[in-house]
Amino acid sequence: MPDSLRCSGVFTPVIMPFKSDLSADADRLVQQCQWLLAQKVGVAVFGTNSEANSLSVDEKIELLDQLVDAGIDPSRLMPGTGLCALTDTVRLTQHVTRLGCAGALMLPPFYYKGVSDEGLYRSYAEVIERVGSDRLKVYLYHIPPISQVGISISLIERLIKTYPDIIAGIKDSSGDWNNTKLLLDAKWDDFRVFAGSEGFLLQTMQQGGAGCISATANINPAAIYDLYLNWQSPAADADQKALLTLRDYLQKFPMIPALKAIVAHYSSDPEWSRVRPPLVELENKQCEELIAYLTAMRFSMPGLQRHTR
Amino acid sequence: MPDSLRCSGVFTPVIMPFKSDLSADADRLVQQCQWLLAQKVGVAVFGTNSEANSLSVDEKIELLDQLVDAGIDPSRLMPGTGLCALTDTVRLTQHVTRLGCAGALMLPPFYYKGVSDEGLYRSYAEVIERVGSDRLKVYLYHIPPISQVGISISLIERLIKTYPDIIAGIKDSSGDWNNTKLLLDAKWDDFRVFAGSEGFLLQTMQQGGAGCISATANINPAAIYDLYLNWQSPAADADQKALLTLRDYLQKFPMIPALKAIVAHYSSDPEWSRVRPPLVELENKQCEELIAYLTAMRFSMPGLQRHTR
Repeated sequence: MPDSLRCSGVFTPVIMPFKSDLSADADRLVQQCQWLLAQKVGVAVFGTNSEANSLSVDEKIELLDQLVDAGIDPSRLMPGTGLCALTDTVRLTQHVTRLGCAGALMLPPFYYKGVSDEGLYRSYAEVIERVGSDRLKVYLYHIPPISQVGISISLIERLIKTYPDIIAGIKDSSGDWNNTKLLLDAKWDDFRVFAGSEGFLLQTMQQGGAGCISATANINPAAIYDLYLNWQSPAADADQKALLTLRDYLQKFPMIPALKAIVAHYSSDPEWSRVRPPLVELENKQCEELIAYLTAMRFSMPGLQRHTR
Repeated sequence: MPDSLRCSGVFTPVIMPFKSDLSADADRLVQQCQWLLAQKVGVAVFGTNSEANSLSVDEKIELLDQLVDAGIDPSRLMPGTGLCALTDTVRLTQHVTRLGCAGALMLPPFYYKGVSDEGLYRSYAEVIERVGSDRLKVYLYHIPPISQVGISISLIERLIKTYPDIIAGIKDSSGDWNNTKLLLDAKWDDFRVFAGSEGFLLQTMQQGGAGCISATANINPAAIYDLYLNWQSPAADADQKALLTLRDYLQKFPMIPALKAIVAHYSSDPEWSRVRPPLVELENKQCEELIAYLTAMRFSMPGLQRHTR
């Protein structure tokens, strides 16, 4: 049965601001989420591009509370909650569910490699049973290039069969259109397929997908949302090409430091450049090259403001 | 300057017993550690084969306290402490150091792939600075087949240069003898090179290594320790071959469930078979094949007792 509580649209794994002591900067994060939400982009905090796996569960729970206390609408939040340890995933997912977030974007446990579908099924099932709430909506997070542990079609089918009201969709960050196509063609009841970036957004929408969850939407939210909304317009092909041009260029750089450098530049706030180890910020030369390119293409981030306390 | 507090010998990543609710079973773990220590094998709790990355930091801290409270000598403990999140690694390493453990076996942060040596250097340096104790002895944990993030020779050199009293050694689980040889040939001052299994134990000892940290030592501690101790004896080659024969056979099975099935069988305690998702216990047929093989080769685990409360 269709479930109106499921998500569609454009979400972004919000980049994570850090203070000089490398603690997460909740004030800047709130401001960035507000800016993104004003561009109609939902906030998938604690995604890969949020450096979420460099934060502890305690840090994430505290940040979620601060976001909601600051007035961020939980129904626009899809936090990443899938961690290596079963008990960590349960704890964070419970918190996300309790806060009334739209969903939990859930990586499989990713330390042990070569694990079986049976093991991954048990892992997701155990989390779902322990959270024990039909308010939980799980969006599976398939990103084998990073997690090295993928989510197969048959695993999804088995999970949907057991938990039809909970398994709500997937983010496919395989980078492989054939896989996204298989997910779309399966036509599981109201299952929401999100492209893992705006790279396949138009194709995904044309085949009945739900939208995309895109790192680049951190800096280019309005244009990506516009293609999501107007995918049937005559301009859609050209708009998709323009998005690809920017995205392809950005991929010359390590994505997270590049996104942060861009936000730092366009908000005149160098604090945004900071990353947590094991990541490293862009070198000055890379920053200059990046900003020169964006300036030449008349890129802008309207409404983005310098953070002041 | 040589530092007598550094480790050598045989350690094992102790397999983790779980209760029926999948919580860690501290009583069985204590008993297993006592049995291993009685065979002269140190306990590298929270290694890969301990399913440590399926446990939260809170669970690990509680288990460490229970081990030490039960009389396990901290100077024989080398817990794994390297996690994805900087703050988690710091917290667990602080606890390990406070308890007076022999060392911390430290994975690099392993979620983000393709990270630079600079980023990994900053990660280790930040942990060391935050722990802020010269009682901390870091054993780097190089296991690229699983972590997918490795530790290069130049990274080790840089870490040793900055923290000569803290960077104490490495476990090389690359499975690549050429890499172990490079580490041994470097002859950094009192740097302890442990083979990642008993597979290269004899070669490692012949080239000046410190011993091995071996999953198989969970079930075969005495024979592995014997080769460590008597690597210069005429029987050493034959002993190494015998160890390899057993190890090669075990590798037909997923290692962790196989080790647990063996301990379950030889302690007449089926509780030991349990694993936490995403792992899956051996199928009955696999168990039977495994035990039949071990029986045929007259394998035994002297002194191992059934757990009773």
